[in-house]
Amino acid sequence: MSPKITGELLRLLRHAMKNCKYFSEPINAYIVPSGDAHQSEYIAPCDCRREFICGFNGSAGTAIVTEQHAAMWTDGRYFLQASQQMDNNWTLMKMGLKETPSQEDWLISVLPENSKVGVDPWIIAADQWKNMSKALTSAGHSLVAVQDNLIDVVWIDRPERPSTQLRTLGLDYTGMSWQDKITALRAKMAERKITWFVATALDEIAWLFNLRGADIEYNPVFFAYAIVGMNAIRLFVDLKRLSDPALRDHLQLDSPSKSEMSIHTFPYESVYTELQAICAAHGPKDKVWICDRASCALTQVIPKAHRSPIPYTPLCLAKAVKNASEIQGMKMAHIKDAVALCELFAWLEKEIPKGTVTEISAADKAEEFRSQQKEFVGLSFPTISSVGPNGAIIHYRPLPETNRTLSLNEVYLIDSGAQYVDGTTDVTRTMHFGTPSAFEKECFTYVLKGHIAVSAAVFPNGTKGHLLDSFARAALWESGLDYLHGTGHGVGCFLNVHEGPCGISYKTFADEPLESGMIVSDEPGYYEDGSFGIRIENVVLVIPTKPKYNYRNRGSLTFEPLTLVPLQVKMMNTELLTQKEKCREVICGELERQGRKEALEWLLRETQPIV
Amino acid sequence: MSPKITGELLRLLRHAMKNCKYFSEPINAYIVPSGDAHQSEYIAPCDCRREFICGFNGSAGTAIVTEQHAAMWTDGRYFLQASQQMDNNWTLMKMGLKETPSQEDWLISVLPENSKVGVDPWIIAADQWKNMSKALTSAGHSLVAVQDNLIDVVWIDRPERPSTQLRTLGLDYTGMSWQDKITALRAKMAERKITWFVATALDEIAWLFNLRGADIEYNPVFFAYAIVGMNAIRLFVDLKRLSDPALRDHLQLDSPSKSEMSIHTFPYESVYTELQAICAAHGPKDKVWICDRASCALTQVIPKAHRSPIPYTPLCLAKAVKNASEIQGMKMAHIKDAVALCELFAWLEKEIPKGTVTEISAADKAEEFRSQQKEFVGLSFPTISSVGPNGAIIHYRPLPETNRTLSLNEVYLIDSGAQYVDGTTDVTRTMHFGTPSAFEKECFTYVLKGHIAVSAAVFPNGTKGHLLDSFARAALWESGLDYLHGTGHGVGCFLNVHEGPCGISYKTFADEPLESGMIVSDEPGYYEDGSFGIRIENVVLVIPTKPKYNYRNRGSLTFEPLTLVPLQVKMMNTELLTQKEKCREVICGELERQGRKEALEWLLRETQPIV
Repeated sequence: MSPKITGELLRLLRHAMKNCKYFSEPINAYIVPSGDAHQSEYIAPCDCRREFICGFNGSAGTAIVTEQHAAMWTDGRYFLQASQQMDNNWTLMKMGLKETPSQEDWLISVLPENSKVGVDPWIIAADQWKNMSKALTSAGHSLVAVQDNLIDVVWIDRPERPSTQLRTLGLDYTGMSWQDKITALRAKMAERKITWFVATALDEIAWLFNLRGADIEYNPVFFAYAIVGMNAIRLFVDLKRLSDPALRDHLQLDSPSKSEMSIHTFPYESVYTELQAICAAHGPKDKVWICDRASCALTQVIPKAHRSPIPYTPLCLAKAVKNASEIQGMKMAHIKDAVALCELFAWLEKEIPKGTVTEISAADKAEEFRSQQKEFVGLSFPTISSVGPNGAIIHYRPLPETNRTLSLNEVYLIDSGAQYVDGTTDVTRTMHFGTPSAFEKECFTYVLKGHIAVSAAVFPNGTKGHLLDSFARAALWESGLDYLHGTGHGVGCFLNVHEGPCGISYKTFADEPLESGMIVSDEPGYYEDGSFGIRIENVVLVIPTKPKYNYRNRGSLTFEPLTLVPLQVKMMNTELLTQKEKCREVICGELERQGRKEALEWLLRETQPIV
Repeated sequence: MSPKITGELLRLLRHAMKNCKYFSEPINAYIVPSGDAHQSEYIAPCDCRREFICGFNGSAGTAIVTEQHAAMWTDGRYFLQASQQMDNNWTLMKMGLKETPSQEDWLISVLPENSKVGVDPWIIAADQWKNMSKALTSAGHSLVAVQDNLIDVVWIDRPERPSTQLRTLGLDYTGMSWQDKITALRAKMAERKITWFVATALDEIAWLFNLRGADIEYNPVFFAYAIVGMNAIRLFVDLKRLSDPALRDHLQLDSPSKSEMSIHTFPYESVYTELQAICAAHGPKDKVWICDRASCALTQVIPKAHRSPIPYTPLCLAKAVKNASEIQGMKMAHIKDAVALCELFAWLEKEIPKGTVTEISAADKAEEFRSQQKEFVGLSFPTISSVGPNGAIIHYRPLPETNRTLSLNEVYLIDSGAQYVDGTTDVTRTMHFGTPSAFEKECFTYVLKGHIAVSAAVFPNGTKGHLLDSFARAALWESGLDYLHGTGHGVGCFLNVHEGPCGISYKTFADEPLESGMIVSDEPGYYEDGSFGIRIENVVLVIPTKPKYNYRNRGSLTFEPLTLVPLQVKMMNTELLTQKEKCREVICGELERQGRKEALEWLLRETQPIV
């Protein structure tokens, strides 16, 4: 992987920073966050501004350019990748290490007195703006909103914003009509005396209207905003997308009778002026709900007296708690996904000895097997297919220049998932097709013990996910090992593979209690830089459980694994383990039904009960 | 326990709330926090205002009185006790339960529009003032500072503020002179460009000057403030206390040469005007460090531009990390303490069958045995000596009207500790002198498993205590059980038995990473209301450890138990346990040396190795 050459781009950007056409005074520093105007984690090509300026294409990172310096902050998953993708113009800021300054502290240390720090107010979240602005102001600087995005100014061949076809989802999949979702939302609004709710997160809008798009690779969402009042629904979207009669019928756009369930459609860009008009037409008693993490631009349209910011929206929480139809869909999706992966592993076992399988061809083969399954839509994220040392790059994505051949001598880690119309999958398996070393087996077994400790945990209702994180690490810690990422994230149902507001992490920010029906991943790992990576990931469903006692009638919860792909027994130090191999019987049945014989034989052999 | 009759007191308080002598307008609600002007947890009798007004005498709780209502918030440790000590005029607000409103939400729900809520600014912390004020203002009310304390107005026979004799501690005990502590503090101040530091916490001031007092029962502290500049040290204390020549010598008060180590003494009450004068004499570049939790009154003396609030002070952190002399002292104190408790348990075993031992007489006997040990000063907190159902009252203190007789039929829980000149102890043991029930044994064993899981945990440097809390609960959770308190608190060295900034709790607030040399308690429990209570508590020292690997050179930590009192084997379901009984050999030696034969025999019998 060779780094992006950024000298000329930085020169142009610094020139734009001094150009009073964009801001009334020269700007001393310019912040380039990684998100889009919806604070999406995965973004469309037109929004990959941070990648454009520095070369690093991971999912999380913030670049800051000053007259003298260019620095990029990212977390432990990406330290190796970022250092390989950025040239010498850039300093990598390793977040989470004690010696790494925060963006604010760094800016204060390098800026001349009374500096202006610019940022595009549409791609910085309101809460981030607030914190950054406060820190800069207290040091005598100021954070300023630059309306024209300065990256776009220097990005000559920037792609268009996508506008793909929309797909409607029926009740079989969603379990709840969009009208019922609106009614439930309005009930929450009434409870808190809220008059308007502004939805800016793309997955929340897709979930609310039971629609899916393909505007962002891997995420079945579409660019839109929605504003919901007690008697009005406004949807902001490229109007050309609304011509399909089935779609118009789904949204009841042509219904002659107007009611509080009538959707008024507006062009995507008009959200700013419409929200302004709504706020102007109402008194300060009309409170508007908007997420803390919505864009600063849109948040600041709402006068402070009207604004009722929330750390996560009622849609975010409602979406996280899956209903019976969604759970059923997720289960079906995971069965199909397990069939595809069993086929992959049987194929790998046969092909690897020939020396012709690479990280890229293995990933392609995984996609091919998945695509043969019913209602396959696409991948849920770029497949991490990594051999040996590449496995230690936590969010590695194989590229032609890094592509390694699978062999009988190295550990193979594949973290992959798909979007099916009925659900989203995300699974990681770590395999060895020859003989793993004692150290590799030892590490694998610690990771597995952590994985099982979380999956098998019983905990009271109301417990937040961060209280389970250490269970995943205890076996590693005992041997002096650890991993620098969280243990689990929420998973959408035919939606984003990462979603809030719950998860399992040592970070406690915006962590809502786990509830029955929530779906999260359980994915501890261990990474030996320059040598190998191990991660074991299942998607698990939070379910009620009834242990022997019921203290203060609080009730208890545990997890049910949805992922049914077997683990490789030869990677385990079996004396350390007691394991219930639930996956065997379920997947065998499905493989048999589908007549996939080789994969069935592989599965039977791989999942011999541990004696 | 009969509740305090509060009708007449509330009438007088409400009368004072309307009296414009105390505030220019009538006050609609008055808040009575539990602390003193130093935000101490344990307080002197003159500061027990919340107890005076509502009757509840636990260590944590806030009372709020309005025209119509009187409500008192406390946490799970005190639900039973508070409900027994308060009469029908009071509503108990159970903190931590979902249905319990916060103080702010409750006030907003009961107050008429545009209300004034009063509080004494000396006994509310600055951060609490800020939060409360913000919430009330956003609902149209206001929080106002009432300079005269309205409880004192109606408290005719309020005791005097104590002014006990001060004790100096030499280097053998402290390991560091107060001059070296001042130098270290100034180095921290220089690092952060701070010109003045205001110390308001009594234990921090006692630690800084290597002095101890006895102004507050159980806590060897004295009423004082200190303000430290780069060239000046000001100590605010009742000047009558400074006549002792040894004390004057320790503080070098009569040294003829003036230097940056000269202490200037001022009357206790003059801290407000002196701090005002300091702030007036300096520019806005002179930053003043003061803890977020210092009193609102003193914090607001410092103009906002000068103020640099911190969640905990550098003294708090320095005090928490014990040096070699302090660790040695703590170890010696715990050996003496274990000798006293072995004597107690041997005595109890002999006396209980006679039916003459009560909770109070057992507590007295424990104190008697402790007082025979060298350098005993007093107890470190009121002994919790509780039989059967009283054990379920988490911070129970036996009173004549609740006093229960120890018998062969009920569980006995004793949580007690002492102040020795060389260290502070805090230990809980749960015993049965007859035959425990299967359920009692089961619960004891889960609690023990949690206790051991924490004590034996290995974790990376930089880990915060809250990440270990779930280890203490996992065995209980698995059976549907739990306890409604944290797992551990910091312990001072001949100082407060509860101290920050570290601990082990599901609460993540102001939780600093554990460091080698810190000392915390490890005390999971289980409480069966109306039946019994179980708690197992050791004080443990954070020590470095070297597991097999050392991931990213971070280093690992674990705990060394300082408490050496054995656990009762008959309370255990031994098949569930593997335990290293370290305490046996150390304490046997000490009992033998001291010629305490009966206790030695008891210890030998009780700590038979588990087969």
